[in-house]
Amino acid sequence: MASGTSHLMTQRQSSVFDELVQIDEFFAQLQKPSNLDSIRTKAGEFCKRNEHLKIALITSGGTTVPMELNTVRFVDNFSAGTRGSASTEYLLQTGQYAVIFLYRSKSLEPYSRHFSPDELLNQLQWEPETDDITVSSSFKPKLREILKHKKETEDRLLKITFTTLSEYLFTLRELTLVLNEFGSNTMLYLAAAVSDFYIPPENMAIHKIQSSEPLRLHFELVPKVLRPLVKFWVPDAFVISFKLETDENILLSKARKALTKYGHKLVIANELNTRKDKVTLVTETDSEVIKVDSQLNNVEIEKFIVENVVQRHQDFITQVEAETSTH
Amino acid sequence: MASGTSHLMTQRQSSVFDELVQIDEFFAQLQKPSNLDSIRTKAGEFCKRNEHLKIALITSGGTTVPMELNTVRFVDNFSAGTRGSASTEYLLQTGQYAVIFLYRSKSLEPYSRHFSPDELLNQLQWEPETDDITVSSSFKPKLREILKHKKETEDRLLKITFTTLSEYLFTLRELTLVLNEFGSNTMLYLAAAVSDFYIPPENMAIHKIQSSEPLRLHFELVPKVLRPLVKFWVPDAFVISFKLETDENILLSKARKALTKYGHKLVIANELNTRKDKVTLVTETDSEVIKVDSQLNNVEIEKFIVENVVQRHQDFITQVEAETSTH
Repeated sequence: MASGTSHLMTQRQSSVFDELVQIDEFFAQLQKPSNLDSIRTKAGEFCKRNEHLKIALITSGGTTVPMELNTVRFVDNFSAGTRGSASTEYLLQTGQYAVIFLYRSKSLEPYSRHFSPDELLNQLQWEPETDDITVSSSFKPKLREILKHKKETEDRLLKITFTTLSEYLFTLRELTLVLNEFGSNTMLYLAAAVSDFYIPPENMAIHKIQSSEPLRLHFELVPKVLRPLVKFWVPDAFVISFKLETDENILLSKARKALTKYGHKLVIANELNTRKDKVTLVTETDSEVIKVDSQLNNVEIEKFIVENVVQRHQDFITQVEAETSTH
Repeated sequence: MASGTSHLMTQRQSSVFDELVQIDEFFAQLQKPSNLDSIRTKAGEFCKRNEHLKIALITSGGTTVPMELNTVRFVDNFSAGTRGSASTEYLLQTGQYAVIFLYRSKSLEPYSRHFSPDELLNQLQWEPETDDITVSSSFKPKLREILKHKKETEDRLLKITFTTLSEYLFTLRELTLVLNEFGSNTMLYLAAAVSDFYIPPENMAIHKIQSSEPLRLHFELVPKVLRPLVKFWVPDAFVISFKLETDENILLSKARKALTKYGHKLVIANELNTRKDKVTLVTETDSEVIKVDSQLNNVEIEKFIVENVVQRHQDFITQVEAETSTH
């Protein structure tokens, strides 16, 4: 081997090394959650128990970015968790997957997402005569369907919560340590709305910021963990990311840029105001639009997104197996 | 009358006028909600129907401050709405009040606050044999109590939601137009966590802020609407505000300063980490501590806060009536 090539190898290795160091340095300055070990154990047991199935990690809801160490105020991302919680239900209903649902505390969850606590409570009546509690008869059919689905699928569902950006990032990284064992059988469906900005803890106010004068805040960029995730943490998995914009004109170009930059398989692009009716599934070479009329037909677009990505994941597995067998 | 006095009068009048103009200018630049008329009508009818009772307006939950006009990101205030929703329940249980509950959409509500949607759903079982839905027997006693209270009190409860700071401020002002008619029979219990900072709409990004570089945000101070509220909007009402700090050392002095500045009756001061176990009720002349051990005794401090302020409101009404009769 010529010395030129060997020199090139070293450069490449050192650039990979730099990238790993950078992401480690970023994590090192964040506040590490105390429950990572127990999450890893739980997730490991869950995956082991379901290893005859494909495994999906679905992330859901927005991350918070605290403005104070004793946090009263924070920056949040708009997301109720509809995309992630609905997709989890549909994915479980295929019968092919066990799902780890990593979601923002108090955002929507599978099954219970169909009603607010108040709506549900309003369907329960206390009967003074019998001193019993009954469910409104008009509500029973819907509730019965949901409870049925829940019963049939919930042992293939593991729920884990986050609130802050740090909690999300640390937990995501920890889960990939477990998921990496399952290679191409793993799908990551990263629907959470993760903040692009944060305030490094050393720049943060300790106490509630006083309101004696106007406030200037300086946010740093959050490094894109999608890159180390695809490259180092779960290199064999089928990774899907989401892109939400309010300006449709930049949406597709941003989706394609993300694919080139991070090297994953699929970006699901959506625009804030039409996100329940239209998404575009973008790969490096083509794009496919899914459109529904969610108001008119009382359907959820997540049903069709899930059908589509399940097929893509299966094609990916088949392709990987074919490649492996020819080697 | 000497011309000096007349000059002084004019100065005073013009300072009041300036204050009113300033607050009007602040409101004028905010986005006005479209449903204020219907809120006013609904609140008017509700108060009329309950005019044999005292009326309370309880505000609850945090306000959001959008960072973009097409809002993906926003600043939020830590508050689940526990204080406001629990206090509403206890106040309704006295039988003396009708309550307008002005709360952050999706924050805790009276009655349903006792469980998350998931907890409630987990207590309902579908029985495949009978195809019926039943409530867990261990859960029935608690649920029965809550449904009983709900049934007995909910016709004295009017719920109105807000999300953004603008929605909160406009709705609050609109409601005071209705409440002012009821004079000292009205109590305002302002437990909502209202942002002190905002980004004026003309300084706001139109679309989702791009994450190509670090972000600097400049927030302006929100003028304290408590001042016009006490002085002009409901001058005869019994007004209680809340003060939350993370630094106990400045809490009481800030509470007292607020009373001097805004001229209302009572500040309930609490510290972030101990807020479920200790509050200090601060007036211009004295202070009173309420302390419970919420963990040990399974009690809610709101029960005692409500008992205390109901008595204070009654004393206030008696005093006002005595003053009126001697004039």
